Amino acid sequence: MILLLGGNGYIGQAFVAELERRKHPFISLSRRELDYNRFDLLLDYLKSKRLNFVVNAAGYTGKPNVDACEAAKADTLIGNTLLPQTLALACAAAGIPWGHVSSGCIYSGAKIKTENQVITEKDINKPEVRKMISTAPENILGFTETDAPNFSFRDEPCSFYSGTKALGEEAMAGIGQNYIWRLRIPFDEVDNMRNYLSKLQRYAKVCDNVNSISHRGDYAAACLDLWEKRAPFGIYNVTNPDFITAREVIELMQKILKLNRTFEFWANNEEFYNSAAKTPRSNCVLDVTKLLATGVKIRPVREALEHSLRNWKPETI
Amino acid sequence: MILLLGGNGYIGQAFVAELERRKHPFISLSRRELDYNRFDLLLDYLKSKRLNFVVNAAGYTGKPNVDACEAAKADTLIGNTLLPQTLALACAAAGIPWGHVSSGCIYSGAKIKTENQVITEKDINKPEVRKMISTAPENILGFTETDAPNFSFRDEPCSFYSGTKALGEEAMAGIGQNYIWRLRIPFDEVDNMRNYLSKLQRYAKVCDNVNSISHRGDYAAACLDLWEKRAPFGIYNVTNPDFITAREVIELMQKILKLNRTFEFWANNEEFYNSAAKTPRSNCVLDVTKLLATGVKIRPVREALEHSLRNWKPETI
Repeated sequence: MILLLGGNGYIGQAFVAELERRKHPFISLSRRELDYNRFDLLLDYLKSKRLNFVVNAAGYTGKPNVDACEAAKADTLIGNTLLPQTLALACAAAGIPWGHVSSGCIYSGAKIKTENQVITEKDINKPEVRKMISTAPENILGFTETDAPNFSFRDEPCSFYSGTKALGEEAMAGIGQNYIWRLRIPFDEVDNMRNYLSKLQRYAKVCDNVNSISHRGDYAAACLDLWEKRAPFGIYNVTNPDFITAREVIELMQKILKLNRTFEFWANNEEFYNSAAKTPRSNCVLDVTKLLATGVKIRPVREALEHSLRNWKPETI
Repeated sequence: MILLLGGNGYIGQAFVAELERRKHPFISLSRRELDYNRFDLLLDYLKSKRLNFVVNAAGYTGKPNVDACEAAKADTLIGNTLLPQTLALACAAAGIPWGHVSSGCIYSGAKIKTENQVITEKDINKPEVRKMISTAPENILGFTETDAPNFSFRDEPCSFYSGTKALGEEAMAGIGQNYIWRLRIPFDEVDNMRNYLSKLQRYAKVCDNVNSISHRGDYAAACLDLWEKRAPFGIYNVTNPDFITAREVIELMQKILKLNRTFEFWANNEEFYNSAAKTPRSNCVLDVTKLLATGVKIRPVREALEHSLRNWKPETI
């Protein structure tokens, strides 16, 4: 039996769908049913069930976006830093392995291969980096699991959200047996305010950023595969392989969804931050070599995007 | 046997002195000897000793002042929020009661008694409040332990330090048996960069604020008294009764230390924040009725101040 926390959330729902598809028995526990921030209640609960795995898809993301976390720091910290520590300790005490929905947004930028070395470039929108993306994308490398987060309280600036997610990883690492599954910018074929494809369609103006992104269902499937394969515990970047620019995603949407409109782009990030955002955003490329090396299959990003758009289910009123 | 964490710090040293004075056997454990942020190591340690109480004087305060915490958010959170949670869980698991050095800096201002009601005033430097301080100080009331912190992540603005201390109280409250001992602005007769009396003498310019403050030795003695008396667990404000303005402290210093200099004051807090500080400071009055009701004795603030100044030990090079 698997216990799922945060099953009502956007990512939690993907776990629900994937567990149902696999006919894997599970309990989806809401915080209304049990205040799992309380160690004593949580541990009693864990011991009372015959669980062999716990999935934590609970956390505090901020609505409609991470700016909201800046105004809800206590809840953000409780959801993203204290809860992972509580869960790690309770699962260790109960002897149950578990997996945690973490985030790749604890990085900024990419690693750039030059003639002699690999350098980290935090600003992926620098003209020379953008030029390389079109001329020599093979020289744009993702952050691996051994790279220290560079968009965190230890390497500012960062958003409060990203700071708490990075510290959440620290707070649970090495306690008992657990997976840290890093998601980046979820999307799929179902129109939703959390879906990247919906967001891009609804923004008044778009930032042409560069990112590794995660198909929501592919992500949940890959996370559960890691556990089913008994891959070693630890951190895994779980995005669809490769990276993509927002401009390319929009071109794909234009082509496949035949949207009857044009898109405006922010001239640059300064314009975006001055006009539309309170806190810095993470834009980054992640390396998924470690995930793929376990034998887990996950579609390349363009394949997953095309599939989502060809099966697009717009929200109906 | 008592276990003391953070015994090398400014407040920890006061516990060392007081425990030695009482001839109470104790172990002062440094983080170099044991990484007590790690639950497993901590719990094993707690179980390996015959302890009947733990004092946590460890935390992250920032050097030379709380501004430094803004640039060390991860360490500030680990020291002030995650550690209290870890300690609470480990002490509960080991069945050991404990006490935590918290801070009154999670409040701003005071409660003001008017004809019909008591209102909270966050800015204690408002001219009408300052006037009341000289004309009707009995109408300036301190925050009690049942008042929710109003200088915290839940009630911003606050400093990052204060936010983590308030959340640390939340993270440990109700787990096992523990005391939350709130200190405010420590001082005593020994010149030290953490001593309020030393700070006031070294500031180029002084803020004439209003505060409840804690004699370091009186604080440690009162905290240990609460435990020795088996006072009910929970939160206690532990300051010397009453409040005092920085201007009055300086007048006392001038009189007793016969300082051969004058002091300059910031015209107002705006000038101070624009010129000398990065993050907002807490200035507040605390009510110690709950502490005194247990029978614990602690000197009024003016008596403790005079005694410290009459026994002043300046630092020698």
